[in-house]
Amino acid sequence: MLSPFVITSKDPHSKARTGILYTRHGAVHTPVFMPVATQACVKALTDEDLKNAGAECLLSNTYHLYLRPTTQILKQMGGIHSFMHWDGSVLTDSGGFQVYSLPKFRKIKEEGVTFQSHHDGSKHLFTPENVIGFESEIGSDIWTMLDVCIHAKDPSKHDAREALNITKRWAERAAKAYEKIVPEQHISKENDIRFSVGNSLLFGIIQGAIFPDLRKEAALHMVSLPTHGYCIGGLSLGETLEQMNESVLAVTENLAEAKPRYFMGLGTPVEMLNAMERGVDMFDCVWPTRVARNGMAMTSTGRVNIKNAVYRTQEIPLDPECDCYTCRRYSRAYLCHLYRSAELTSHRLMSIHNIRFLIRLTQRARAAIENGTFMQLKEELVEKYKNI
Amino acid sequence: MLSPFVITSKDPHSKARTGILYTRHGAVHTPVFMPVATQACVKALTDEDLKNAGAECLLSNTYHLYLRPTTQILKQMGGIHSFMHWDGSVLTDSGGFQVYSLPKFRKIKEEGVTFQSHHDGSKHLFTPENVIGFESEIGSDIWTMLDVCIHAKDPSKHDAREALNITKRWAERAAKAYEKIVPEQHISKENDIRFSVGNSLLFGIIQGAIFPDLRKEAALHMVSLPTHGYCIGGLSLGETLEQMNESVLAVTENLAEAKPRYFMGLGTPVEMLNAMERGVDMFDCVWPTRVARNGMAMTSTGRVNIKNAVYRTQEIPLDPECDCYTCRRYSRAYLCHLYRSAELTSHRLMSIHNIRFLIRLTQRARAAIENGTFMQLKEELVEKYKNI
Repeated sequence: MLSPFVITSKDPHSKARTGILYTRHGAVHTPVFMPVATQACVKALTDEDLKNAGAECLLSNTYHLYLRPTTQILKQMGGIHSFMHWDGSVLTDSGGFQVYSLPKFRKIKEEGVTFQSHHDGSKHLFTPENVIGFESEIGSDIWTMLDVCIHAKDPSKHDAREALNITKRWAERAAKAYEKIVPEQHISKENDIRFSVGNSLLFGIIQGAIFPDLRKEAALHMVSLPTHGYCIGGLSLGETLEQMNESVLAVTENLAEAKPRYFMGLGTPVEMLNAMERGVDMFDCVWPTRVARNGMAMTSTGRVNIKNAVYRTQEIPLDPECDCYTCRRYSRAYLCHLYRSAELTSHRLMSIHNIRFLIRLTQRARAAIENGTFMQLKEELVEKYKNI
Repeated sequence: MLSPFVITSKDPHSKARTGILYTRHGAVHTPVFMPVATQACVKALTDEDLKNAGAECLLSNTYHLYLRPTTQILKQMGGIHSFMHWDGSVLTDSGGFQVYSLPKFRKIKEEGVTFQSHHDGSKHLFTPENVIGFESEIGSDIWTMLDVCIHAKDPSKHDAREALNITKRWAERAAKAYEKIVPEQHISKENDIRFSVGNSLLFGIIQGAIFPDLRKEAALHMVSLPTHGYCIGGLSLGETLEQMNESVLAVTENLAEAKPRYFMGLGTPVEMLNAMERGVDMFDCVWPTRVARNGMAMTSTGRVNIKNAVYRTQEIPLDPECDCYTCRRYSRAYLCHLYRSAELTSHRLMSIHNIRFLIRLTQRARAAIENGTFMQLKEELVEKYKNI
């Protein structure tokens, strides 16, 4: 029995820390950016592209994989790792957010949530228990619990309270379901769950919208449950940066320090640095690959919209400070030409760059936290990247 | 001064032969399949994908590159090789076919052809002379002459005769234009043009539609001109296989044996084998990458339409006999999932396979020609691949 998470350094001037999360597929160094492989594929990329960009953990999605290719097929194919030829770690989102945002129809009951597939309208039921089962079939390394997610932009406190109440009851059921599937786990008296190498990890999801008191309540409740880590859900959905920062702090101040915290769906460089400062360890976001397919690159000098005519004759790389595959091989002129010519290769090369950009950001943050200079780096990068 | 083409073996039972074509960027082993990088990019792929698939020469297109990024920009960027990070050989099509097929408007005069860009309707003039200049700016290794191409499915002999007459006059002008740009060339008394390493090569285009007498006339005329090789244009455009074979033979029987013959726009495996039997050395086609993007793979057991439900649970590669990147890493189940999920990665992985399939076909053909077993291989593969 080992603790799956080891904190390796703490910043003296903020809540930022570095750590290593051990999964069935190896070490994940935190703070970490996890590229999003929604459908067992990061759009336009392969496992080799991700490995070369320095990715250690991918995010995939139970809702999508359940509908296609189906979790039964994934199990039959030996799990998501062998299916997509990826030997790093995989975290699966429970599907709570997708059930909320994708189907035309959904109904939340105590038992679970019924919904219609956004592909063909077929009806399905997700419960806290069967989602754990699906994640087991997927074979991901980190499983998350089914939650009720409401959009954070302008929620009523009544709705947020209702959603949190169900999420708390479902979390208790999910933890029990996990114990049945993974019986060798060991819960110490401090509720610090340990794990046997070879088992998948369980992360709880903390809701509470933009209400610090609800966020605190959610955090304290999750601390009472046997989990290996915490997801902060229901943010980065349109709230202000102040609301986001306040909500995050209300969570991280009340969590067990020894467990990793994952901010679901974040983010931009500035948002990630702000969250690291408040003690967040893990991030994912579709944004860097989505904007890449629209021709936008994050660079050390700000945004580059590669479609702009000014880049037609620039021989320098997208970002002269970058070491990614794209920047080592191709000029802005070529990338501009590919985008303007609607070549699919553009999407791959731009996506590789943006993912590498965020992974390098986490690498620099880790080095700064270890050196006690995180806040200086943060101030410098927030100024540099404020327009990204 | 060296001859750029060396015939390394001849099949005793057919006109098939193997050879090496030396360009500014190295050796091209024939028979060769050239992937099509119309816009300085093979759709969905990078230079590394092509290198890994065994490609030695790419085809790009003067018409497309002239309009975008423009040949001036290509020259400014150091030519197409440095632009697209490709260090193998590049042949450029003159644009005659594209001027015929893409713009809404074109007018052929003695001077050249005026046309409107299919992008923005702007007017342009291609002449035999300026096309050679554009190819020089592009920096390709093998230049082709401007020709007049008519569709071969059901042409009148009158139209074919008219097109051939202009093509012949333009070829003479193109050869003179080449001599001005590349003065160090040496034309021997047998009209066997030699080249200095470092110079680009000139290929003439033989037209004549489906009329063997016109094809013979075109071939004999081209033999009288100083060129390093011959393109067979205006075929694979809807004519029957018999018409195609007869036209090819009327050309190759009348060409200088010592120069390479390139069948423009071919082909399928069976078409390529038929043309090799008749003495053709070089091929290109967009078809393998186009069908790849529709989910179709050529395999040793016939076509695989990867979207079909039967592949959802097949753990074997697309083609268990294939050594390509895709077949070494991914199952049919994963590729089926990617295609059904509309993942862009599908296009890349399927394209890599189809290109490698045709390159392996040329490799096997070369070995068989060297061993004197080409006709056996051809019969075997025509039977095996008749439905591809």
